[in-house]
Amino acid sequence: MKTASICTIGDEILIGQIVDTNSSHIARQLNLLGIQVKYMTSIGDDRARILSELGNCLDNTDIVIVTGGLGPTKDDITKDALRELSGARGYKQSPEQMAHIERILGARGIPLIDTNRAQALVPDSCTVIPNKLGTAPGMAFYGLGKHRSSALYSLPGVPFEAIGLLPDVMADIRHHFDLEEITHHTVVTFGIPESTLAKQIEAWEDALPANIHLAYLPNPTIGVRLRLTQFGGQADFTPYLTELQSLLGEAIYGEGDDTLQSVIGDKLRAAGKTLALAESCTGGHLSELITSVPGCSDYYKGSVTSYSNEVKMKVLGVREETLAQHGAVSEACVREMASGVLRALDTDYAVATSGIAGPGGGSPRKPVGTAWLAAAKKLPDGRVEVATQCVHFASSRSVNIERFASYALDLLRRNL
Amino acid sequence: MKTASICTIGDEILIGQIVDTNSSHIARQLNLLGIQVKYMTSIGDDRARILSELGNCLDNTDIVIVTGGLGPTKDDITKDALRELSGARGYKQSPEQMAHIERILGARGIPLIDTNRAQALVPDSCTVIPNKLGTAPGMAFYGLGKHRSSALYSLPGVPFEAIGLLPDVMADIRHHFDLEEITHHTVVTFGIPESTLAKQIEAWEDALPANIHLAYLPNPTIGVRLRLTQFGGQADFTPYLTELQSLLGEAIYGEGDDTLQSVIGDKLRAAGKTLALAESCTGGHLSELITSVPGCSDYYKGSVTSYSNEVKMKVLGVREETLAQHGAVSEACVREMASGVLRALDTDYAVATSGIAGPGGGSPRKPVGTAWLAAAKKLPDGRVEVATQCVHFASSRSVNIERFASYALDLLRRNL
Repeated sequence: MKTASICTIGDEILIGQIVDTNSSHIARQLNLLGIQVKYMTSIGDDRARILSELGNCLDNTDIVIVTGGLGPTKDDITKDALRELSGARGYKQSPEQMAHIERILGARGIPLIDTNRAQALVPDSCTVIPNKLGTAPGMAFYGLGKHRSSALYSLPGVPFEAIGLLPDVMADIRHHFDLEEITHHTVVTFGIPESTLAKQIEAWEDALPANIHLAYLPNPTIGVRLRLTQFGGQADFTPYLTELQSLLGEAIYGEGDDTLQSVIGDKLRAAGKTLALAESCTGGHLSELITSVPGCSDYYKGSVTSYSNEVKMKVLGVREETLAQHGAVSEACVREMASGVLRALDTDYAVATSGIAGPGGGSPRKPVGTAWLAAAKKLPDGRVEVATQCVHFASSRSVNIERFASYALDLLRRNL
Repeated sequence: MKTASICTIGDEILIGQIVDTNSSHIARQLNLLGIQVKYMTSIGDDRARILSELGNCLDNTDIVIVTGGLGPTKDDITKDALRELSGARGYKQSPEQMAHIERILGARGIPLIDTNRAQALVPDSCTVIPNKLGTAPGMAFYGLGKHRSSALYSLPGVPFEAIGLLPDVMADIRHHFDLEEITHHTVVTFGIPESTLAKQIEAWEDALPANIHLAYLPNPTIGVRLRLTQFGGQADFTPYLTELQSLLGEAIYGEGDDTLQSVIGDKLRAAGKTLALAESCTGGHLSELITSVPGCSDYYKGSVTSYSNEVKMKVLGVREETLAQHGAVSEACVREMASGVLRALDTDYAVATSGIAGPGGGSPRKPVGTAWLAAAKKLPDGRVEVATQCVHFASSRSVNIERFASYALDLLRRNL
C-alpha cells in the first residue's frame, strides 16, 4: 500500500487565524485511491523548517502533498525551498499559467505587475499543473526522497483553488504510481447511531469476504456512511448491498456523495413538486442546507424564519391559543407552522422546526436541546397531512442547530 | 518566548472524514498568551507513532497539547502511551471525573458500565483537569522532554469538550511557566481589503514603538482584525487607537471578539429596535449569522427567504413590473424586498439580498458573483428609507454566499 503525507504551510494556520480544511479534502481523495495518509503537518512560512519537514515527509512516504506558501508575497520561500529540495538550478516560465494569470487579472480589471509575472515562474525541475482558478500554479516533482521514488505535489493554499486542482493531482498520482485496483461503494444512512448500527449489521459484516473492507464514516449532517472497499479486480457488491438493504430498510437514503438535501432535491425535481420551510430554532440553517444544492430553485420556493411569536401568527397563521396553551416549542405549534408555510407559499411539501438551541432558555420539561419537527404534505384532495417528531440533544448551540436541521430533513425525506 | 506544538490523534482525521478544528482554537489561545506554536501534527491511533511524535514534540517545544484518542473504545492506546512517556507505573482513579461521568450518564439515562468507569482511570503521573462536558478527563503531565522542562496537556477530541477545557489549560500554563507579560487590543474593521488597509495605515504602523507589534487577521465574515500586542509591562494603547480611528473612520466597527452580527445585535437591543431579513441568493445564511448570537430573539423577528419570484411578490410585495423590467437581481428589486419585509414583519430595520451565487446562471451584464444588497430603516414619520449597494465577487458558490451576507450585514451596520 502506498503511503502519503500532507503538509500545509502558513503562519496564519499556526496562530489559529484560519482552520486548515485542505488537509481533510486531500486525505479523503487519497483514501479513495487506497493510499494511506500517515500524517499531516502544519508549519510556518520558514525556509529551514519547510526544508526539514518536506525532506522528512519525502523520506518516509511515497507521496507528499503540500498546500500554501505560494501567494504573490510569500512564494519565494516555499517555491525556492522546493527548487533546492528538488535539485533544480533555476526557474522556467509556465506559458500556460501565464495565460491564466493574464485572463484572471484582466477579468478583474487589475493591471499585471511583476509580482504577478513571477507567479508563472517555477523551478525547472517541476511539471506544472495549471491552476485555472487562481494565479499560483500547481507543481509536481518526481524522484525525490532517500529512495528517489517519492513524488511531491505543491498546491496553492486558497481552498477552492487547491480543491479545484485535486482531480488533476489524483490523475497524476494514478498515472505515476502502480496502485492496486480499488473499488468502492458507499451507502448513506440516517437516524441510527453508529454503535447501534454496528450491532444491527454485525453478522452481515462478519460474513463479508476477506477482500472486502467496511468503513463507518459518521457525519452529523449526513448521517453514517457505510463504505465497502474491495482491493484488486472488479467488485460486484450487489449481493451484499441487497442484504444490507433488507437489514437497514429505509434508514438507507442514498449512495456515494448523496446528502439528505441532495436526495430530497432529486426526488422533488423528479416529481415536479415544491418545498417551503418554516424555521424557528434552526434560524435559517435549514434553508441554507437546501440552498447549498446548486439548481435548488427548481423546487425550493422559500422559507419563513419566525423568530418571534408575532411572525408565527401573522405570517404563518399559528393560532394564539396554540402558543398560549402549548408554547412555541410544541407539537401543535410545529404542525401549524408547517401547514401554514405550505399554504402561504403554496407548495406541495413543507418542513417546520421549533426548539431550544441554548445556551439559555429551556425548562425541566423542555430542556435546552429539545426541538419539535414537522413535515407537511399536500394531499390530492387539498388537505394537508403532517408528520411530527420530538428530538433531544445535549450539545452546544451550533451543534444542536445542526442536528435539529438534519433530523428535520430526514423527517421530510421519510415522508416524501 | 515559550514554544508549543499541537498534536491531534485519530484515524478519522487521516482519512479526511473530519476536519480538525481543535488545533486552530488551541493555537489562537496560545498565541494570545504570547506562546509561539511551531507546528501542528495529526497522526493515527497507533501506539508507536504516538510515542515517537509526542517524544519529538516534548524534546523540541515547551508545551505540547494533544487532543483525541481518549474515547471509551480507544483510550487505552493514547492513555497508555502517555503513561509510558511520563514514566508512570500504573493508574489512579479520579474521583472528580468519576462524579462527572455518573452525572452525565445519569442525565441521559444510560447505565454505567466498565468502559465508562475506565475513563476515570488516569496515569498516576498526571494531574487531572476535570471535564464537566464529557466523560474523558483532561490530563496534565509536567517535567517531560529531554530538558525535563516541558508540559503536556491531553484533551478529549470532541470539539466542544476540548474547547470547554481550554480556559483551565491556559490558566495552568500561565501558572506553570514564567510567561512574559502580554497585553492585546484588537480593533475590528470591515470593507477595506487587507492590502489597501496596510497602505492606508503604513505611516501609523511605522511610527509604533518597538515594543508594540501589529498583526493583520483577515477573515471573510468578520473583516480585517488589527491586533496590537505589547510585551512586558502595562500597555496604554489609547493614543495609537485614537489615531487609528481618525485614519479608518467608520470602517472600524468593534473590538476584541466583536462580529458584525454581535455589534448589530448590541446596537439594536440598546435602541429597542427590531430587525427582519429578506434573503434570496444568501438562502438563509444571513439569518443563520444573525441567530448565531445567543439572545438574538430580543431584536430579531424573523426573515423571508424568497427563492422564487412568486414568494417575492406574494409575501414581500415586490411588484411584477419591477421583476419584469429590472429582473430579480436589481437595485429596484432589493429595495422592494427590504421595505416589503420591514412592513410584513413590522420591524424598524430590514436587510435584503438578491444575486447570483453560481455556479450556473448569470449573464455578461450580471455575471455569477454579482449581488444587490439593501438596508431599510423606518423613519419616525413612518416612511421607509433604503440604502443599497452592488457587490461583485468571483469565487465558489459557498464563498460568494458568505461574502454577500457579510457585506449585507455591513451595509446595515453603517445605516443603523
